[in-house]
Amino acid sequence: MTTSAQVTVLGLGNMGQALARAFLAHGHPTTVWNRSPQKADALVAAGATRAATVAEAVAHADLVVVCVVDYAAARQLLEPAAAALSGRTVVNLTADSPDAARDLAGWAAGHGIDYLDGSIMTPTVTIDTPDAVLIYSGPAGLYRRHEATLAALGGTQHHLGTDPGRAAAFDVALLDLFWTAVSGLTHAFALAKAEGIDGADLAPFAEGLAALLRDSVADHADRVDTGRYEADIAALDTVAAGLEHVVDASERRGLDTGVQRAALAQMRRAIDAGHGKDDVAVVTAALLADREATASNV
Amino acid sequence: MTTSAQVTVLGLGNMGQALARAFLAHGHPTTVWNRSPQKADALVAAGATRAATVAEAVAHADLVVVCVVDYAAARQLLEPAAAALSGRTVVNLTADSPDAARDLAGWAAGHGIDYLDGSIMTPTVTIDTPDAVLIYSGPAGLYRRHEATLAALGGTQHHLGTDPGRAAAFDVALLDLFWTAVSGLTHAFALAKAEGIDGADLAPFAEGLAALLRDSVADHADRVDTGRYEADIAALDTVAAGLEHVVDASERRGLDTGVQRAALAQMRRAIDAGHGKDDVAVVTAALLADREATASNV
Repeated sequence: MTTSAQVTVLGLGNMGQALARAFLAHGHPTTVWNRSPQKADALVAAGATRAATVAEAVAHADLVVVCVVDYAAARQLLEPAAAALSGRTVVNLTADSPDAARDLAGWAAGHGIDYLDGSIMTPTVTIDTPDAVLIYSGPAGLYRRHEATLAALGGTQHHLGTDPGRAAAFDVALLDLFWTAVSGLTHAFALAKAEGIDGADLAPFAEGLAALLRDSVADHADRVDTGRYEADIAALDTVAAGLEHVVDASERRGLDTGVQRAALAQMRRAIDAGHGKDDVAVVTAALLADREATASNV
Repeated sequence: MTTSAQVTVLGLGNMGQALARAFLAHGHPTTVWNRSPQKADALVAAGATRAATVAEAVAHADLVVVCVVDYAAARQLLEPAAAALSGRTVVNLTADSPDAARDLAGWAAGHGIDYLDGSIMTPTVTIDTPDAVLIYSGPAGLYRRHEATLAALGGTQHHLGTDPGRAAAFDVALLDLFWTAVSGLTHAFALAKAEGIDGADLAPFAEGLAALLRDSVADHADRVDTGRYEADIAALDTVAAGLEHVVDASERRGLDTGVQRAALAQMRRAIDAGHGKDDVAVVTAALLADREATASNV
């Protein structure tokens, strides 16, 4: 049974507006607040209630959704309304680091505020469509209490665990994978262009390699979980040799190679540690080992 | 009609051995040579002819396939046999930079040797299977003359153009994309592990993002071909903000952030040049523009 909940959305950037529209579309009475109040105009026309202050916005809320630029901004708007928020539930969908999420959860606990942290893994246009993916972490019972209301945001939603930083940790790890990969894509197309190759000619091959990346994820995950690093297909020293050709070819065309050189440096450290014949997944272990080595020197 | 050709394979590392086995399996009389002759033992047992020198190995060849560590090694073994190679066809499947391919093509032309350059885009295990992908560049007529023989290597083969460096240029651009993306994958799993997340838990989400990368390739290609950089989904300044969270979260766990900082530096240069509201594909244009700016200062 889904009943309508009183929802408040704090922060009306593009994503916050999409969230508020989705709650409205699913029949939830929705109150909205934004530092620049005119951002609420279209939502008010669509049936939302505009609040003048955060405290007023949350006064009758079953669920307070926060979506602002970072956790410093979130804290700045929540702190003055701590008394009004006490006994209510805040779901923070702002993107930031796992530690920032844990800090805000600690602040909320200190003020009697129920707190769930979440991350939106898909672009604004996916909200209230089957393509949306949202992840949450924090108390499991609290998540279950609000799961049906949050379902208004569409797609699939996952509760990943009770550590309030866990959703943000997934978020940063996945942003890391995606934007580093996109950096490789932008550089590959630049290198191709510098060699007189049109994007359209490279694209089918690039799609094939992106599909290969997808296919390699499960094996990579299994290797890092089990410490199984014997190479089946390409050993790390072969990968490094390939990346050296990339750096050489890029520099002959005057292209910045900061990303590729940094990747090569990580691989070389793992090779120097004796992993040249291991699978490239050993770089994950080497990054973690370097971290421990550094930490033990502090 | 496919007729059997006299094929010679020079260089019997894992890939060279796989190439020789494929030619043998398709009925081509195959001569093999390697600096360390014992690498030919298994192939000789399978029907190949062992040659004592490169000149002897190529003396009766319709097609000479070279697969060694780099073009310096290729040149070192081909130069003393230039007279024996004159009037024959060399297909060089060694991986190196586009300029190295062009240099070797020039050397071959100077000695009356027909020359095709090629790159093998898939691992050794794919040779003589439908999964193999091989790309070639050089004279179109020469490629057509040997296409049926090269089909023994399996999968799909593409002639990409007459510039002998073009296959190598595709190769380095695609290695760039793939290994930079894999670097992101290794780092993402390290960051997840540092946050207590198992590989198996991250994997389904990582697969989803790798699929999204694949889906973004065609749009990226079209943008760089047409100069259309208005953001539809995520603007570059939003991407940079996400990557800043990644760097912050990684440094809180003591992880090396060389790759992510270098990617962020490239994005910031594009943002400083006024592209913060453009699609991330504008980084390709910015990398090329920086190159021109540098070149004009030389």
